[in-house]
Amino acid sequence: MGEDRGNRRRFLAQSAALVGGAASGSLAPPGAAQELAAQPWERVYGAPFTGYGQPSRFEASVQRHLVRPYGDLAPGSGAAFAPLESLEGIITPSSLHNIRNHSGTPEIDPKAHRLLVHGLVAKPLMFSVEALLAYPMTTRTHFVECSGNSSRALAPQPAQVPVGAIHGNMSCSEWTGIPLRVLLDEAGLAPSARWLLAEGADSAHMSRSIPLEKALDDALVALYQNGERLRPEQGYPVRLLLPGWEGNMSVKWLRRIKATAEPTHTKDETSKYTDPLPDGRSLQFTFEMGVKSVITRPSSAMALPRPGLYEISGLAWSGAGRIRQVEVSTDGGATWTVASLQGEERPKSFVRFRLPWEWTGKSALLQSRATDEKGRVQPSRKDWAARYAPDMRYHNNTIVSWALATDGKVTHVYA
Amino acid sequence: MGEDRGNRRRFLAQSAALVGGAASGSLAPPGAAQELAAQPWERVYGAPFTGYGQPSRFEASVQRHLVRPYGDLAPGSGAAFAPLESLEGIITPSSLHNIRNHSGTPEIDPKAHRLLVHGLVAKPLMFSVEALLAYPMTTRTHFVECSGNSSRALAPQPAQVPVGAIHGNMSCSEWTGIPLRVLLDEAGLAPSARWLLAEGADSAHMSRSIPLEKALDDALVALYQNGERLRPEQGYPVRLLLPGWEGNMSVKWLRRIKATAEPTHTKDETSKYTDPLPDGRSLQFTFEMGVKSVITRPSSAMALPRPGLYEISGLAWSGAGRIRQVEVSTDGGATWTVASLQGEERPKSFVRFRLPWEWTGKSALLQSRATDEKGRVQPSRKDWAARYAPDMRYHNNTIVSWALATDGKVTHVYA
Repeated sequence: MGEDRGNRRRFLAQSAALVGGAASGSLAPPGAAQELAAQPWERVYGAPFTGYGQPSRFEASVQRHLVRPYGDLAPGSGAAFAPLESLEGIITPSSLHNIRNHSGTPEIDPKAHRLLVHGLVAKPLMFSVEALLAYPMTTRTHFVECSGNSSRALAPQPAQVPVGAIHGNMSCSEWTGIPLRVLLDEAGLAPSARWLLAEGADSAHMSRSIPLEKALDDALVALYQNGERLRPEQGYPVRLLLPGWEGNMSVKWLRRIKATAEPTHTKDETSKYTDPLPDGRSLQFTFEMGVKSVITRPSSAMALPRPGLYEISGLAWSGAGRIRQVEVSTDGGATWTVASLQGEERPKSFVRFRLPWEWTGKSALLQSRATDEKGRVQPSRKDWAARYAPDMRYHNNTIVSWALATDGKVTHVYA
Repeated sequence: MGEDRGNRRRFLAQSAALVGGAASGSLAPPGAAQELAAQPWERVYGAPFTGYGQPSRFEASVQRHLVRPYGDLAPGSGAAFAPLESLEGIITPSSLHNIRNHSGTPEIDPKAHRLLVHGLVAKPLMFSVEALLAYPMTTRTHFVECSGNSSRALAPQPAQVPVGAIHGNMSCSEWTGIPLRVLLDEAGLAPSARWLLAEGADSAHMSRSIPLEKALDDALVALYQNGERLRPEQGYPVRLLLPGWEGNMSVKWLRRIKATAEPTHTKDETSKYTDPLPDGRSLQFTFEMGVKSVITRPSSAMALPRPGLYEISGLAWSGAGRIRQVEVSTDGGATWTVASLQGEERPKSFVRFRLPWEWTGKSALLQSRATDEKGRVQPSRKDWAARYAPDMRYHNNTIVSWALATDGKVTHVYA
């Protein structure tokens, strides 16, 4: 592996060259402080305060990757992927959170919006947003991943695009909202209630059936995301959040929850989000997202400038709970080294993994493999493909491979 | 206390009235689903994807509170307070993070910016931002609080403004950066080095002296905030982060770290940020922020529409480590009830506390009192004031009191 946690000074040669193109470039010459003082922004009074801040204009290229299968005919249908290649840590900024929309983002007036809880309940209830905001809340960090995330990695040839354009149909936020069971308790579930129908207020009325057990377990009616009210693209003013389950089930712009005895079999869960099997049948309900990880740095379309010590950094997550371990291989899976984790105390959340690695200049094959607290291990492409029909496009949680060439270029490969 | 965790149905009467002005207003009438379908946004195709999202226009009033003591003469000097009254959870959105600037926000080109590490070191080093981005990083959630936060609560009369305008000169983010000790290790500290000078690239060259122990403990050279690169107002492209210490020491736009034998006694640590004592002397270095809490909901300038069950929610934090406990009183300190905590596993971070409370309609005095893992308890106003001269304006961590009147109005009081 070439792991080298102790000898931090090896970073020097690398960073030095980045500064001045030569190892001595990072050694400050006499009078270096004067040289620093020459920057123009140190000589002028800075910008005034803003009420609501924005990123630096030098970061303007950090944008979501838009996937619009119908082009300008339906510009709000498709997905927007988080630019994982430009992000660090665990939280995804709300402005860069992935989006999966079926008919664009509705512009909802929170004063007019209502949430109806009805069906097999003792008392049907209608909630204003103001009423919901007065309820007791809970705060938890959870990922949301589209079940079709990483389907681009099922194309015949590996796409040579940034990691976010392949695997960024997922994000992770701090969510604050009302436990769904509180609202169901107020409505009074009938003994015959076994499922819920959740429906959105977009013009597609995106709808899914949800087993009652999940609703009574950790489901939230979310009102806040990363400290502020939900963004419109993530369901303002109110969305469902089903931690660890297919992203589309966390119905955005939530307008209706209906208690039912059976699944409703909505258009969204019959025409889409079903898994074709090798024997010709389809699996209708695969709610939980699998254990998964991806190296974000270095990753496809990046380049390492020269041999030296690098940090391999990436994300891991599981719909079943906490991440127990992430292993990293730089030799295509022949050997594995356990990476350090950050945020691993949080279930159904991204975890950031990190591993120092010395690149000697030889070609390498970088992979990561996550294991969750239930003992489930991220599968290889081969093992995963054997479970499904060839046209399967959902729940691809297979090991991702980045090839590093001797010239430092990183490419996406299937291994 | 009237605590009532079990009987959730009591929320109903309250929310019902909020919906329709009468208790029956929340019971869905026959045909309620049709009524829901009448909203205009459900009948039109929604907005297209954006590369970088923004809040709903219906939340446009959620802005930082600007404090500009010199007005238009120096529009970037002063502070911008986080609107705590509109926020929930633990993370402060980067767009609403508090700001304390001495000469505005510089617009820094990251390609030209340099960080110099020099002074009592074996090898002075100069780092480009690109070089820093290649270093090993760590991710942690920490608050940043201005040492002058809550000074407005030391005015002769209690200000009747939202809680954020009094106590919002603080925020909490997920920070990702390089442990400062890694860079110091590369430069090679001389045995005589005991302090560091940290200097910013704003036109004020805001500078502070930092004991070496802190630098080698948990200090970060931060590059990312809440997943994306730092915002300009929080130090883009690189800032120092000294978890739990006076906010101004986490020097923004970091350009220089100089190892020294003694404190430098910069203008910023002699003209400001010293604590006047009753005997006429001043305490120069009070680095650590005290244990503190504040109820954000309900809080000053809010009103409760009617008696009923409410959640009392607020923030607690300590510069010394984790929050062990937050107690809430609704009778001006005669009795206290322990609140539930979220995020309490994170040291030097905001913690969200919550307590259900039934307001019977009588007048009440709401207070919170935090205790940290070192056993330090948030002081009363009286105990705190006895420690300092009357003109002390820093490190006010006293208990905050909100008076609730029989008409539901919440006012700021000194108690």
